[in-house]
Amino acid sequence: MGRITTRSPVVKITVGGEAVRRPDTLAVEEPLEIRVAGVPLAVTMRTPGHDVELAAGFLVSEGVLSRGDQFASAIHCGGPGTGGTDGNTYNVLDLTLAPGVHPPSADLARNFYTTSSCGMCGKASIEAIETISTYDVAADAASVSAATLTALPDALRAQQAAFDKTGGLHAAGLFDAETGELLVLREDVGRHNAVDKIVGWAVLHDRLPLRGTVLLVSGRASFELAQKAVMAGIPILAAVSAPSSLAVELATASGLTLVGFLRGPSMNAYARADRIRV
Amino acid sequence: MGRITTRSPVVKITVGGEAVRRPDTLAVEEPLEIRVAGVPLAVTMRTPGHDVELAAGFLVSEGVLSRGDQFASAIHCGGPGTGGTDGNTYNVLDLTLAPGVHPPSADLARNFYTTSSCGMCGKASIEAIETISTYDVAADAASVSAATLTALPDALRAQQAAFDKTGGLHAAGLFDAETGELLVLREDVGRHNAVDKIVGWAVLHDRLPLRGTVLLVSGRASFELAQKAVMAGIPILAAVSAPSSLAVELATASGLTLVGFLRGPSMNAYARADRIRV
Repeated sequence: MGRITTRSPVVKITVGGEAVRRPDTLAVEEPLEIRVAGVPLAVTMRTPGHDVELAAGFLVSEGVLSRGDQFASAIHCGGPGTGGTDGNTYNVLDLTLAPGVHPPSADLARNFYTTSSCGMCGKASIEAIETISTYDVAADAASVSAATLTALPDALRAQQAAFDKTGGLHAAGLFDAETGELLVLREDVGRHNAVDKIVGWAVLHDRLPLRGTVLLVSGRASFELAQKAVMAGIPILAAVSAPSSLAVELATASGLTLVGFLRGPSMNAYARADRIRV
Repeated sequence: MGRITTRSPVVKITVGGEAVRRPDTLAVEEPLEIRVAGVPLAVTMRTPGHDVELAAGFLVSEGVLSRGDQFASAIHCGGPGTGGTDGNTYNVLDLTLAPGVHPPSADLARNFYTTSSCGMCGKASIEAIETISTYDVAADAASVSAATLTALPDALRAQQAAFDKTGGLHAAGLFDAETGELLVLREDVGRHNAVDKIVGWAVLHDRLPLRGTVLLVSGRASFELAQKAVMAGIPILAAVSAPSSLAVELATASGLTLVGFLRGPSMNAYARADRIRV
């Protein structure tokens, strides 16, 4: 539980050189099954640690949770014959929601993308999020200076370096848009998990919607990450690499500021560039 | 259909400079629902194009298909009220399997990772793959020279450059281990999709198991990608970045050669380094 890295032998091979056997540090990847009231809901491959945040953030993204008091408790439960000295793999997490909070449907992914009459298309996916989202991201009066934004990737990497000796972990960081202060950072082999852990941290501390914040991700900005930002009420999503077409469409429809290629002194603003003060 | 990139306006902002509005090229991301005999099985966010390969490769990874003659046909079907001039979004693909081929269970993810008695853990995930895999990757007599391996990332990028103007597409390439010849390359916003498209190409051309080949991926090597290599009978998986712990464990258990950090003249071999000739 909470093992972020592990050691493994590796053979380093260089053309024209020698093959050298040495130890290497790997990012840990293990499955996590998320259950609500005993009903299996999803399996994700994640880096152990902050599992309750991960599960809570996942439920925010799916429109089930929006306040901390809707969440009652969580226990790691092991199946029969599980490993470990205490018989618990810590890879099954069962959540209990507060009385009156509706558990999600068992067929999340399909329901999520097909609530519109449009069958299955990007437009339907965006409309589904508009239907279930609790917060009005477009109305968030937050703004951020371009200079503050360009300082964030270094701030993220400086903190990440303390944890990541593997080169194998994605990072996500939540920052105050005005001061550039890092509020929380999470790492995971899956970038969607790193963001879920941040959103889960926020809902468990009853900090949703995350008005006036910037979510920075170490890689690309997909539809799924834009969805998670919108569902948590985050007004500004910034990525070090490229956004996808559907991430831009969702940002445009939702009033989310979407920044890509945030590198060195410059960036590309794909939606709601008016929030960025030059 | 087959739209890999699209154009979008972007504001390029540079600290101390001007904000410049210009067009940008984005990687297209759209949902694809995969059905078998009309039953919805999975939704993936993918880059359109090679959808039949993607779906066929997905079914290989899940242990449903292993030969081309097990696949009968595929049609893109639109729901009522779908967009497009012909009423088809090309985002729902319905597959028909050959008579006698068992369709997969509707609850794939859960079944896949929990077939062992161990509840939910990495070991169970690996045992599940050992149980359903058709091919003996460990017995593949393939070998590859270190010099051939180090030439592959440039070969992939040279081909990818022709397609990817976005910085937002993952690439996967299948190479002949002996000659280093590129057999097929696919790109997608999701790296698992790029690999599924390659494996689907192979099964539709009845080329499974992919003995004597190297699968190169442009990013990291996760458990899921190692799983796809093993299920397709690929003996060597190489990644430009880091592998995860569970990818290394699966490679070790399956006899898959796993190479990470394949950059410049060197690489790290995490499993079955004996296949690499120095």
